Amino acid sequence: MNGRRLTFYYDFASTYSYLSAMRIEELAARIPVDVAWKPFLLGPIFKAQGWDTSPFNLYPQKGAYMWRDMQRLADAYDLPFMHPEPFPQNGLLAARLALVGSDAGWTAQFTRAVYFAEFGAAKNIADPEVLKAVLETIGVDAEAAMWETRNEALKQRLKDNGADAERQGVFGAPSFVTPDGELFWGNDRLEAALDWAASSI
Amino acid sequence: MNGRRLTFYYDFASTYSYLSAMRIEELAARIPVDVAWKPFLLGPIFKAQGWDTSPFNLYPQKGAYMWRDMQRLADAYDLPFMHPEPFPQNGLLAARLALVGSDAGWTAQFTRAVYFAEFGAAKNIADPEVLKAVLETIGVDAEAAMWETRNEALKQRLKDNGADAERQGVFGAPSFVTPDGELFWGNDRLEAALDWAASSI
Repeated sequence: MNGRRLTFYYDFASTYSYLSAMRIEELAARIPVDVAWKPFLLGPIFKAQGWDTSPFNLYPQKGAYMWRDMQRLADAYDLPFMHPEPFPQNGLLAARLALVGSDAGWTAQFTRAVYFAEFGAAKNIADPEVLKAVLETIGVDAEAAMWETRNEALKQRLKDNGADAERQGVFGAPSFVTPDGELFWGNDRLEAALDWAASSI
Repeated sequence: MNGRRLTFYYDFASTYSYLSAMRIEELAARIPVDVAWKPFLLGPIFKAQGWDTSPFNLYPQKGAYMWRDMQRLADAYDLPFMHPEPFPQNGLLAARLALVGSDAGWTAQFTRAVYFAEFGAAKNIADPEVLKAVLETIGVDAEAAMWETRNEALKQRLKDNGADAERQGVFGAPSFVTPDGELFWGNDRLEAALDWAASSI
């Protein structure tokens, strides 16, 4: 029951997580492997490493490379790509909303729509109005979902995701963890992570 | 004349550079693309970012992941892999020797043999005796080559490689630069870099 499942840790501020969010379900369906969508906040993990913002801002040459690399990959995947301002964006509300959708089953669809607004259309996902529009696009009652994000148990679930990520050795996003605890980091390891998940029991 | 050529920047202390050094010539020959082997020292570039050792040592979770990821990749490529002590190793003498070989044409062969000693057999490549043994294995007069490494012009060439790397935006290793200045970073971008080089004029 535990096998053939891949946990997908993503942060809404993460550029490379966008690429994986757009690709993972189609790739997983082919194998097939189930995907567990697990939003989390990378900020606390970065802070523990002494970083108060994205390493792509802290190390300008690495940042310049990332934007170029992302553009090349988006072109190759035929995905739109823009540089949103500010970067990184505050993804707290989006992450809570993604968890609100887990019982009703719209987390994946919502996640893709948020990334599309952020990196496909350079919208600011910290803006509740942007997120409400996203919710409406996928046919979810925006006011009701927004209300749910104030629930303390839901807020705790997001923190738990972060704690789970840290315990499994996650230090960046996207990250993928197989049922036997194998960790893969980066959009360029998505295929290998799915293959590993498919062969675990 | 300038096209279909890929500049391969590598640091002898870099684990992922080992994987690329072992793979690049076979992949390049298939396309075909010429490879310019360019050893350089990452230390000064890391120092400019505020790092006094490898980020894999500075960030323990990232380091733990790297060793595991390297083992998986080495298994997939059917390459031996060991964790040498100390890590990172001092690759200054090896890099100078690699440059000594550029006129006689043994840089690539020497580079692979050094990486093989370091990451395939956990030898310490800062030890001149280890490097002499490597030179002898590939049929090079070890004493003569060692003598050449004292040449000031040769020492300067290694510094020039570092300056070239920095000017082209290199911030890690391995890095690949195409004739039109496109930068690719990481062993997992080797194939894309070769494809880009093949399509540049």
